[in-house]
Amino acid sequence: MGAMFFSLPRGVVLKLQEIVGNENVVLEPESYIYDETPPLIRPEASRDVVVVKPGSTEEVSRIMKLANERKIPVFVRGGGTGLSGGVIPTRPGIILSMERMNRIIEIDEQNLMAVCEAGVTLRQLLDAVERIPGLSFPPHPGDEGAQIGGLVANNAGGARAVKYGVMRNYVAGLEVVLPTGEVLNLGGKVIKNATGYDLLHLVIGSEGTLCVITKAVLRLIPEPGATYTLVIPFESAENAIRTVPEILRSGVIPLAMEYMDIGAIRAGERVTGKRWPHSGGKAHLMIIIDGMDEDELIRKAEIIERIAKTHGALDVLVGVGKKEQRDILEIRSLIYEGLKGETIEVLDVSVPPASIAEFVETCQREAERLGIEVLHFGHAGDGNVHQQILRSGMDGEEWMEKYLKFKEFAFGLASRLGGYITGEHGIGSVKKADMLKTLPGESIELMKAIKKVFDPNNILNLGKVVDVE
Amino acid sequence: MGAMFFSLPRGVVLKLQEIVGNENVVLEPESYIYDETPPLIRPEASRDVVVVKPGSTEEVSRIMKLANERKIPVFVRGGGTGLSGGVIPTRPGIILSMERMNRIIEIDEQNLMAVCEAGVTLRQLLDAVERIPGLSFPPHPGDEGAQIGGLVANNAGGARAVKYGVMRNYVAGLEVVLPTGEVLNLGGKVIKNATGYDLLHLVIGSEGTLCVITKAVLRLIPEPGATYTLVIPFESAENAIRTVPEILRSGVIPLAMEYMDIGAIRAGERVTGKRWPHSGGKAHLMIIIDGMDEDELIRKAEIIERIAKTHGALDVLVGVGKKEQRDILEIRSLIYEGLKGETIEVLDVSVPPASIAEFVETCQREAERLGIEVLHFGHAGDGNVHQQILRSGMDGEEWMEKYLKFKEFAFGLASRLGGYITGEHGIGSVKKADMLKTLPGESIELMKAIKKVFDPNNILNLGKVVDVE
Repeated sequence: MGAMFFSLPRGVVLKLQEIVGNENVVLEPESYIYDETPPLIRPEASRDVVVVKPGSTEEVSRIMKLANERKIPVFVRGGGTGLSGGVIPTRPGIILSMERMNRIIEIDEQNLMAVCEAGVTLRQLLDAVERIPGLSFPPHPGDEGAQIGGLVANNAGGARAVKYGVMRNYVAGLEVVLPTGEVLNLGGKVIKNATGYDLLHLVIGSEGTLCVITKAVLRLIPEPGATYTLVIPFESAENAIRTVPEILRSGVIPLAMEYMDIGAIRAGERVTGKRWPHSGGKAHLMIIIDGMDEDELIRKAEIIERIAKTHGALDVLVGVGKKEQRDILEIRSLIYEGLKGETIEVLDVSVPPASIAEFVETCQREAERLGIEVLHFGHAGDGNVHQQILRSGMDGEEWMEKYLKFKEFAFGLASRLGGYITGEHGIGSVKKADMLKTLPGESIELMKAIKKVFDPNNILNLGKVVDVE
Repeated sequence: MGAMFFSLPRGVVLKLQEIVGNENVVLEPESYIYDETPPLIRPEASRDVVVVKPGSTEEVSRIMKLANERKIPVFVRGGGTGLSGGVIPTRPGIILSMERMNRIIEIDEQNLMAVCEAGVTLRQLLDAVERIPGLSFPPHPGDEGAQIGGLVANNAGGARAVKYGVMRNYVAGLEVVLPTGEVLNLGGKVIKNATGYDLLHLVIGSEGTLCVITKAVLRLIPEPGATYTLVIPFESAENAIRTVPEILRSGVIPLAMEYMDIGAIRAGERVTGKRWPHSGGKAHLMIIIDGMDEDELIRKAEIIERIAKTHGALDVLVGVGKKEQRDILEIRSLIYEGLKGETIEVLDVSVPPASIAEFVETCQREAERLGIEVLHFGHAGDGNVHQQILRSGMDGEEWMEKYLKFKEFAFGLASRLGGYITGEHGIGSVKKADMLKTLPGESIELMKAIKKVFDPNNILNLGKVVDVE
């Protein structure tokens, strides 16, 4: 057992070893305590933890029962790809790593659903679905190492949400383990269900604080077919953003509709060593359309071109070839990845889609005033803006002061515009204080009371979202 | 004040009159106590009620505060189009009729959203949206007298849900009044929100038992364009149902995909005096497809025809003209309406879509065995089957015995197939005992505890879904 300091009683560790087997209890937690949350702002993890890797729902149930009886904190861990510190163990306790529960149980072609364990990665699921001709699974938050349980627990979004919606739209059923160890099935292979309160939808997005997700039944849809990727530069964020609802109203619903300021594009170019198709303009839209054939794609591209030009588009470039489209997407996708080392935080406020321009332009001015570099990009079709705040060589005290001021400004502005502090990254441990400041007290009280209903001993992912007091 | 027996203290009635004005307190409740639930199985309403018609959120808040302090039951009433007795006052108390809160506050063309009060009818909303070129609101449960608050509270479905999803997918924000009188805003003009537990999605489908919905922010989408209506007869339910996932996989997502057995079609013909386009076959699919132009419609119709014929379709009839399509839809729509007088109940179980054939055929055999007439129709695309159980001249004791046996059989079979007792009609007062029998005890306990969090004094729509004990 090594000689580490460890505050879990030896009896508990032995019991855990008995439940999952010796080889699935890890006492050197170093690679299990952080996620993709930028190091500069993530909370310090406790090293006084034991990593337990259950192989079945029954094992999860036994672990939870033990933890609940002894009131030992349990931190559920999926792929560790979150950006809000949702899996960081902020106290001594058990890390419940779902990695071994990685079986795809069934691809049900008759019901167009997939059934899988929570530890299946997005990549694994996509591989399994792609083997079946004509089927696809649309949600794609970016990192394919994300696990299904985490995608559900965080109601993952991503660029394709404009047309295909967020994770919530694809969850038909869940198997969950309550803190007491009870196993509960919610929904199933059904599309409609009006039988009592929708506990399924309450669990989606609850960030592992109400129960442990062990299995999911996911809806599949027909393959989207071929795609074109359009790049459209504008002189201002306002012109770019005003184009978005017009496109949606035209009846063309793009797969993705991404906004990027020129600074973000430059960063993506530097990281990838690739060239963006157009070097002019201050604000770009990257629009991916899909269609059953070339005819449909051309017709859609023409409609978008006409609308964009009436809103002052400097040009409309259409990427048709696979490589060309992949390169464009890579520049967009690697903005965050490439600048991770320099990044203080990536905010992801959600505002009414028509308010993106005002939000972005006002924030850009504030960043300039404060002297802090902020890249703006994000999902223009659904009002979800990403703001990557860079350190740019500032020392610890300087960046902290400017970052906090900028964040407060951005969150305050988002709230005044009728928006929220996070559209898809979630609260985790990093945005907890901000949530308490921006949501009405009555909402917070309801959330705390709901947490207490599910987890009266406050053992699940404590320090995240809300706690029982 | 009339001479009715009335158990509300006179002081409370005076206070209610002060809040909403004398003319908006009605002491003859007769036209406010029932909904569309078939009379044979609905619970007896209390006449010992006062109808109060608030004109604003503030008035709702003051009424709730008063009711909560005095622990007076409040029954929220929308358009009264429900089929589960969800609005029937089963105890003395206040009926809160939302009819005067019927203002459409805004059609926001930039954000593609409508903001309206809860008492706006579906017809009113559709009229307002149709005045704006290019926009539409897809959810359509049938009766356009339904109010928005009721559509949200019951997460309404309808035939168009195959392509466009249920009400839940169109609710971006809600203003609600808690039993304490607190006004709370959930969501807003935002498409994505990951800021804490999703209280919005918990309220959707809670049937007015957690809070009073006073306003809704609803998403709008582009107009679907032109439609074709296909009628496809098959020799068996199994052949018809096997066609459905194949069509969905082909990439053609119909607007509606309705299943009807020949008995249901005959009933619809009798009621409307119109002829269904094909008189053969035992099981029919009625499929509505939409498209941007004739080309797209023809292409989609051809794909469906090819698939249907490989599954034994006897014929594929394509309704192209407006009148022709309207007639077909009318026969489908009036099955329930026309037979209302003879109807004991309409069940609406939700099963895995691929299990519809097994469900329908097994239930048909059981109905024959019991000697009770049951029409089968429903939303084949999403596994939501309607079973209209007819009295067919049986006397009180006979129909009650056979109906109860059939219902128990159907609910039991739905559960064994992994389904639920209601897909869109909800629990209300009529299905409460059945829900308690078919859901796991742990789910019921969580629902009761959540009810207690929102409504500790158990004043809201008591007797519906779950109560605080």
